[in-house]
Amino acid sequence: MSQHFDLLVIGSGPAGQKSAIAAAKLGKQVAIVDSHKMVGGVCINTGTIPSKTLREAILYLSGYRQRAFYGRDYTLKERITAQDLAFRVQRVVGREVQVIRHQLRRNGVALFEGVARFQDPHIVAVETTDGEILLGADFVMIACGTRPAGSPAIPLDGTRVANSDQLLGLATIPKTVTVVGAGVIGLEYASMLCALNTEVTIIDARPQLLDFVDRELIDALTYHMRDNGATFRLGESVSAVEIDARERVVARLESGKRVVSDALLYTVGRQGNADQLALDAVGLACDDRGRIGVNETFQTAVPHIYAAGDVIGFPSLASASMEQGRLASCHMFGRPCVNAPHLYPYGIYTIPEISMCGRSEQELTAAKVPYEFGVSKFAELAKGQMVGDDTGLLKLLFDPDARTLLGVHVIGDTAAEIVHIGQAVMAMGGTIEYFRDTVFNYPTFAEAYKVAALDGLNKL
Amino acid sequence: MSQHFDLLVIGSGPAGQKSAIAAAKLGKQVAIVDSHKMVGGVCINTGTIPSKTLREAILYLSGYRQRAFYGRDYTLKERITAQDLAFRVQRVVGREVQVIRHQLRRNGVALFEGVARFQDPHIVAVETTDGEILLGADFVMIACGTRPAGSPAIPLDGTRVANSDQLLGLATIPKTVTVVGAGVIGLEYASMLCALNTEVTIIDARPQLLDFVDRELIDALTYHMRDNGATFRLGESVSAVEIDARERVVARLESGKRVVSDALLYTVGRQGNADQLALDAVGLACDDRGRIGVNETFQTAVPHIYAAGDVIGFPSLASASMEQGRLASCHMFGRPCVNAPHLYPYGIYTIPEISMCGRSEQELTAAKVPYEFGVSKFAELAKGQMVGDDTGLLKLLFDPDARTLLGVHVIGDTAAEIVHIGQAVMAMGGTIEYFRDTVFNYPTFAEAYKVAALDGLNKL
Repeated sequence: MSQHFDLLVIGSGPAGQKSAIAAAKLGKQVAIVDSHKMVGGVCINTGTIPSKTLREAILYLSGYRQRAFYGRDYTLKERITAQDLAFRVQRVVGREVQVIRHQLRRNGVALFEGVARFQDPHIVAVETTDGEILLGADFVMIACGTRPAGSPAIPLDGTRVANSDQLLGLATIPKTVTVVGAGVIGLEYASMLCALNTEVTIIDARPQLLDFVDRELIDALTYHMRDNGATFRLGESVSAVEIDARERVVARLESGKRVVSDALLYTVGRQGNADQLALDAVGLACDDRGRIGVNETFQTAVPHIYAAGDVIGFPSLASASMEQGRLASCHMFGRPCVNAPHLYPYGIYTIPEISMCGRSEQELTAAKVPYEFGVSKFAELAKGQMVGDDTGLLKLLFDPDARTLLGVHVIGDTAAEIVHIGQAVMAMGGTIEYFRDTVFNYPTFAEAYKVAALDGLNKL
Repeated sequence: MSQHFDLLVIGSGPAGQKSAIAAAKLGKQVAIVDSHKMVGGVCINTGTIPSKTLREAILYLSGYRQRAFYGRDYTLKERITAQDLAFRVQRVVGREVQVIRHQLRRNGVALFEGVARFQDPHIVAVETTDGEILLGADFVMIACGTRPAGSPAIPLDGTRVANSDQLLGLATIPKTVTVVGAGVIGLEYASMLCALNTEVTIIDARPQLLDFVDRELIDALTYHMRDNGATFRLGESVSAVEIDARERVVARLESGKRVVSDALLYTVGRQGNADQLALDAVGLACDDRGRIGVNETFQTAVPHIYAAGDVIGFPSLASASMEQGRLASCHMFGRPCVNAPHLYPYGIYTIPEISMCGRSEQELTAAKVPYEFGVSKFAELAKGQMVGDDTGLLKLLFDPDARTLLGVHVIGDTAAEIVHIGQAVMAMGGTIEYFRDTVFNYPTFAEAYKVAALDGLNKL
C-alpha cells in the first residue's frame, strides 16, 4: 500500500520547493521528501543563507566599510568571536526553515521527513524515523542537491582541516587560513576571512579565477583581496596535507612549496547526491560527480522523471534553481513557460560583491560581436563617498550602432541589487540612451548607470 | 568692459552644474557664479550630502539594523558624540566640493566666486573679494537655490533653537528635540534623531504627513518612528518659543499645549534666493517665498533667462534639479530633449527610507483609474532577515486588465536603489508579469518585485 501523488519531489531546497509549490498552485497533489535536518536544503542549512548571513555579520562587526573613514585597521569589535558570528546565522537559518515549512503547509504540499530512494519508476521508498513508507507518483522531481566533494590528499578533521559545511562550526576564527579551491564558494569565504583580517592563501589548479566573470571585475576583486592580506597561488595543486609538531596545517604543493596556516578550508567543487537515490531501479544513471543530465525542459532520460537545481550542474545558484523547479512543473502539467537563461543574473557574494547579467567582453569577443563599453567608478558617486565604497565599478557593454544594452557587470556595494535595473532594460530591448535620459535618485549607486552610459556614449 | 559668455549660470548646485556642463558639452562658452563657501550649492554644503552622510553615520554608529538581532537597546557606541558624526560629514563634503570643481574645470566652465545680481537683462554684476566684475551673456540660468525660512514666532539662536543648516554645528546630541515642520527635511532629521534614541516631538500645522506619498508607506514610517520614541502633533501650530529657567526650550502650541525639550529644530519650508538677484533690473519678479515661475522648458517671463532647481519650487530634489538644468540648456541651444517628469523617482531618506516612482493609490483613485495592487513584506524575504530589516515593504500598482505597471512604492533598506527596477519597467511599458517571469539574485531586496507581482496576479 502506498499513498499516491501527482508529483513527488525529492529535496526541499530552492528547486524542490518551487517545483512543489508551482504544481500545488496548479491544483495538483504534491509531496516533498527531505531529511528532518535538511528542510530547505543546502541553501538554507549550510549554503547560501548561512554564508550570506555570515557575510552580513562580518561586514558589520568588522566595520569593513568604515575603514574608508577611520583607517584600514578599524574594526568594530576588537575580538570578533566565532560565537558572535554563529549567533546571527543560527537565528536567520531557524527563521528561514520556519518560512519554508509554512509555505509548503499553506500550499497543501505534504512534507515527509526521511531519506528517499527509488523502488521503481513510480514508487519512492522513504526511510523515516518510524520505518519505511512508500510513496507513488505520476511525476518525480529529483532536486536532491549536492554535498561537499572530498579529496584523498586532504583528509578532513572538521576543526583544522574543514570543508565549507564545517566552517560554521569552528570554535575560533583562525589567524591564518589556506583555502583550497577558488570557485565561488572558496572565494566568498576567503574574502570574508580577509575582511576579518585573517591572512588567507588561496590555491587553485586553474590558472584563472571564475572564468565566466568579466576580467576587469576579477582583477578588481583580486586587487582588493590582496589589499586585505590575501595571497593567490593559481595553477598550483595540493599534493598532501599534514599537521606539524606545532599543530599547524601544512599544505604541500606539487611545485614543492609549503603553505603553513592555522586552518585549511577545502572548497573544491561539490558532489551530487543522485548517487544515493538507487537510480538503477528506474533505469537512470548519474555521472561520476553524482549529477544527472536533463533536456531543456528539465526531463531526464525517463520522461516522467525531472531534475533541477544543483544536481544538474552549472550554474548552481539558488535563484536559477528556483526557476528551473518552476519551469519543470509548468512543463509537466502542460503549462509551458518561457525560459530566458541568458537574462539570469549572477550574484557572487564576495567582499566586495559581484553581479552581472547578459554577456561579458570575453563572450562577445569570442562570438565576434562588436561592442563598446562605458564605466562608472563608485568613487565618483556621492553615494560611494558617503558609505565608504570608493572601489566599486559598473560597466555597461552595448552595441555601438543600435546602442542596445548587451551586458551589465558590477562590483561593489548593492551590486546584486542594482544589476536588475540593467536586466530589465536588456529584457525589454532598451538602449543605453535610456540611462542617459532617466532621472535617478540622488545619492544612490544606481546613478552609476547614468554615469556609465554617458561615458559610453562619449566614445561613439 | 565685461567678459561675455554664451551662458551665465547663477548658482553651482545640482541644477546650475548640470546646466553649465550640458552647455559646455555643446561647445558653448559658459560661466558659473557662486560664493566661495557655497560651491556645490545647498546640496553639497548644507543639504542633501551632509544630511545623507549623517544618516549613513547614524545608521552605522547607532547599530540601528543590528537591533533586530541584539535587541532594541543595542547601540554600537554607547556615547555617540556630535564630533563622531561631524567628522564623516566634513570629509565627504570636502571631497564632493573637489569633485565639482574638477568637473567644471574639465568641461572648461569658468567659475567666478562671488555674489551675483542682475545689472541688465544681459549683464550680471559679481561682487568678489577683489571687487565687482561684470559678466555678459546671451543666456542666463537662475539656479540660485533656497535658504531655510524663518518665523517671527520662533527666534533662532543656533544652539538650542536651530534650523537645519545649524543642526550640523551642534556641540552635543540633545536627549529630547522638538521638530517644527514635518516636511521631507523635518522628517529625515526627526527619524535620524529617533535612531539615536533621542525623544522627538514632531509638530506640523498640516493634518497629514507628506501628502504626495502613498498612505501605507507613511503609516509604516510613523509606526516605526513612534516605535523609536517619536510623538506626532499634527494639525497643531507653534505660537511662541521661549527658554525656561532650566535652560529648556518650551514651545507653546495654539491649542494650549506646552512641549518642553532640550532643543528645537525649525524645518518649516525654504525661502528662495531669487529675492537677492535684483530681478527688477530685468523686469522679473519672484513670489513672496523668493521663487520664480517658469514654463515647461524652464524659461522665465524673459525668454533668454531660464530658472531651474529649488528656486522654481516642487519637487526640490537634487535629482530632478539636475535634469531641469540639463533640459534647460538643451532647449536654449536648440537640442530639445524629452522630459518625463511622471517617471522621476522620489527618494526620501528617512529611517526607514522611502522611494517611489509612478502614480500613488490616491492619485489613481482621484483620476478614476482602476488598479490592482501586490505587496511584498521584507520580513518574508531572506535578505530582510539577514540584514535585520523585517519591517520594509514594496507595493506594485498595476492595471488589472493590461497588467501594465502604474506605480512602485517602497519603504525599507535600499528602497531608493531598487525603485529604479520598477521605473525601467514602467518607462518601457512593461507588465507585472515581467517580474513573475524574471530570475532575481537570491538573496536580495529586489526579489520583493517577484513576490509582490505574484501577490498581485493572485488577486486577478
